Amino acid sequence: MSYFDAASGAPLHSVARQALLASLDEGWADPARLYREGRRARMLLDAAREAAAEAVGCRPDELSFTTSGTQAVHAGIAGVLAGRRRVGRHLIVSAVEHSSVLHSVEIQEREGGSVTRVTVDRSGAVDPAAYAEALRPDTALACLQSANHEVGTVQPVAEVAALCREAGVPLLVDAAQSLGWGPVEGDWSVLAASAHKWGGPAGVGLLVVRKGVRFAPQGPVDEREFGRVPGFVNLPGIVAAAASLRAVRAEADREAARLRELTERIRARVPELVPDVEVVGDPERRLPGIVTFSCLYVDGETLLHELDRAGFSVSSGSSCTSSTLTPSHVLKAMGVLSEGNVRVSLPLGAPEEDVERFLDVLPGAVAAVREKLGAPAPRTAVEEDALVVDALGKRCPIPVIELAKVIGDVPVGGLVRVLSDDEAARLDIPAWCEMRGQEYLGEEPADRGTAYLVRRVS
Amino acid sequence: MSYFDAASGAPLHSVARQALLASLDEGWADPARLYREGRRARMLLDAAREAAAEAVGCRPDELSFTTSGTQAVHAGIAGVLAGRRRVGRHLIVSAVEHSSVLHSVEIQEREGGSVTRVTVDRSGAVDPAAYAEALRPDTALACLQSANHEVGTVQPVAEVAALCREAGVPLLVDAAQSLGWGPVEGDWSVLAASAHKWGGPAGVGLLVVRKGVRFAPQGPVDEREFGRVPGFVNLPGIVAAAASLRAVRAEADREAARLRELTERIRARVPELVPDVEVVGDPERRLPGIVTFSCLYVDGETLLHELDRAGFSVSSGSSCTSSTLTPSHVLKAMGVLSEGNVRVSLPLGAPEEDVERFLDVLPGAVAAVREKLGAPAPRTAVEEDALVVDALGKRCPIPVIELAKVIGDVPVGGLVRVLSDDEAARLDIPAWCEMRGQEYLGEEPADRGTAYLVRRVS
Repeated sequence: MSYFDAASGAPLHSVARQALLASLDEGWADPARLYREGRRARMLLDAAREAAAEAVGCRPDELSFTTSGTQAVHAGIAGVLAGRRRVGRHLIVSAVEHSSVLHSVEIQEREGGSVTRVTVDRSGAVDPAAYAEALRPDTALACLQSANHEVGTVQPVAEVAALCREAGVPLLVDAAQSLGWGPVEGDWSVLAASAHKWGGPAGVGLLVVRKGVRFAPQGPVDEREFGRVPGFVNLPGIVAAAASLRAVRAEADREAARLRELTERIRARVPELVPDVEVVGDPERRLPGIVTFSCLYVDGETLLHELDRAGFSVSSGSSCTSSTLTPSHVLKAMGVLSEGNVRVSLPLGAPEEDVERFLDVLPGAVAAVREKLGAPAPRTAVEEDALVVDALGKRCPIPVIELAKVIGDVPVGGLVRVLSDDEAARLDIPAWCEMRGQEYLGEEPADRGTAYLVRRVS
Repeated sequence: MSYFDAASGAPLHSVARQALLASLDEGWADPARLYREGRRARMLLDAAREAAAEAVGCRPDELSFTTSGTQAVHAGIAGVLAGRRRVGRHLIVSAVEHSSVLHSVEIQEREGGSVTRVTVDRSGAVDPAAYAEALRPDTALACLQSANHEVGTVQPVAEVAALCREAGVPLLVDAAQSLGWGPVEGDWSVLAASAHKWGGPAGVGLLVVRKGVRFAPQGPVDEREFGRVPGFVNLPGIVAAAASLRAVRAEADREAARLRELTERIRARVPELVPDVEVVGDPERRLPGIVTFSCLYVDGETLLHELDRAGFSVSSGSSCTSSTLTPSHVLKAMGVLSEGNVRVSLPLGAPEEDVERFLDVLPGAVAAVREKLGAPAPRTAVEEDALVVDALGKRCPIPVIELAKVIGDVPVGGLVRVLSDDEAARLDIPAWCEMRGQEYLGEEPADRGTAYLVRRVS
């Protein structure tokens, strides 16, 4: 079995495992107590905090351990928004943040705050100028991920941080995907991260709040973790998290180069091996271990099952793999194809042979899914000026498959109108046009679903 | 070293350790993913939930794993208050709840809700009738611990639950101290608990919300844990928590009888071995492993250090051991002595020899502290009708020591006025009177601090 979903959660690093075992015996007592076991626990906690702070590049008293990266994001955003309430209630985020940021945004909107979502380009990167434009006198906080979790694109954090600093607005960086590779550059104010992304245990996150940032913890608090994270600390987890962060950093440069070569190989060879594929994400400014591509005419869930059967664990941003049946908001914001989407995120130490085997297996897996789906004959009708494809009631990728089947039936300059009630079509039909050099004319309301209008230009 | 502070946190149970180790290898992936590692993680999570639910006596889909008992309490209270907002904003708690409950209460008050704090008797127990009286048409929630964490007194949860049920008000039970011993009886609605209290790992709690309770999770949420606990689950911790709960339950009856005999020995012999001691908490309806006593004329922090040096780790509710220099709110609510307070809470398997050694060491430790503190000669003056003891600027237990020194200097029927600016005196002077059969007449404002009036009656 090859696990290629490290961006969801990495297997436990051997150093984390050792540290966890050692501190199960030494670190179970309450570090707030004054007796021997408590003092020993306090020493372990202090040492872990120093190690983590050094890796982040902050003061130990700026760093609190949380119970997850999600909790760090939620507490960080809520704390700054409350601390800067007098300034205003405007929040800036990128359109491709992690769901933990977006859930905080929903709360902020529900409570009457305003939110600007900064768009991204087709590579998934924000433009610092767009943050500069979004900054307002009542902006309480800006948020930007260090790198995207779905496509690996690295964001211009240092530039955005400088612009925010100039405007006197704190920048919160969700560094979950990148902290194992190195400290976040630039003059950020708040940072959140998650240990199980770098090979630490689940149940530990980091929240860093720079001195000078107005911060008012929300919800009930106690004296733990500088009043920022209530509840008894999970000390063995914290010790393991700090030890493994240090360990992965020690091997980061070499491993980054190795994984980058492997993901480059996937980026280059998948389009050669598989027809009708779009590799997404910035080809240069990207994380070493993540590569994402989308396959036309493929149902993501079936492809994941095929790959699972062949021994590969990957994830997908396709609508059919989401519980809400909507495509990933990241792919949507990038305007790229979401159907047949596959994210490969290599864990540390992923063997080259496994990647080669993946490249061997993938073309057959995609072909098998396409064959299965190729069957349904589109119901078409010529209606006024356009060929109409009725894909109502059919899920992604069927609407695009049917469009592709009939585009040759209209003359160059002719129109195809695709009727679909699947939300993913809104993303995938324009993306298909972009990929195949056809002209997407836009959508129109229809009796049922939506009509997507395409002009054949080649 | 004998660790006698299991009520703060128990050492990891061997079953928890084994389960944790096994699931570090099997349970690190995201249980929401569909590939092999994710399905394996999901199976572990489901099995842990079933085991925990069986131990609690609830349906698996009523039980969410949280990241601490504190988080369970916070989320439980906030969720019910929001879910029943239309009913009203009145909350009932006992005066001796855990700080996690009290911190939630503070938030509720700050946000305009009203709170009734039900008092306790001298044993620390609430009277169910007092809950019945406190119930109002706008009561959204009542909270009651299953047993007290400082003195071990078991609360009449089943009776209070029945009264609440009759009034249509949900009862939230903080079962942190008792869940390892057995399920909470009665018709409660919401339950919170903490794994590291029963020998599970830190970083895991339980939140149980019975079907039919109106519950609206607060703060940003995601799809994890039925939408009640956001963030990636700490699966190895959860598996270890569930396994150890089952394990401690299997040995609970036998171990409860054994520990009860040991704490009974401490309850009976401490007053024989140490003069001027008050054993607090209900002698019958109490947890098996907790016994608490307070020693007159002793400074709690110094006594803890003496006992630590002698190899015993215990805790104290004395003001001098708290960061805020106020005595424990539990002892205060009970109206018992807080000075020289010692809580012994025996972990599972605590050896009888250790308890005997503790009883050997304690008298000398108390005597040593008393000797150190016995020195200062009280400055007294006869003023109008009373002998005045000026203990201004002196910390607990000095005001009581000085009172005890001079009480013999006034005739029976005569008055002593103790001036003190230490908050603990408010609790400890009346408690001393109760213990020594003298009459406490009340307090009066003074130029500095407060004057406490005592009449010699014997």
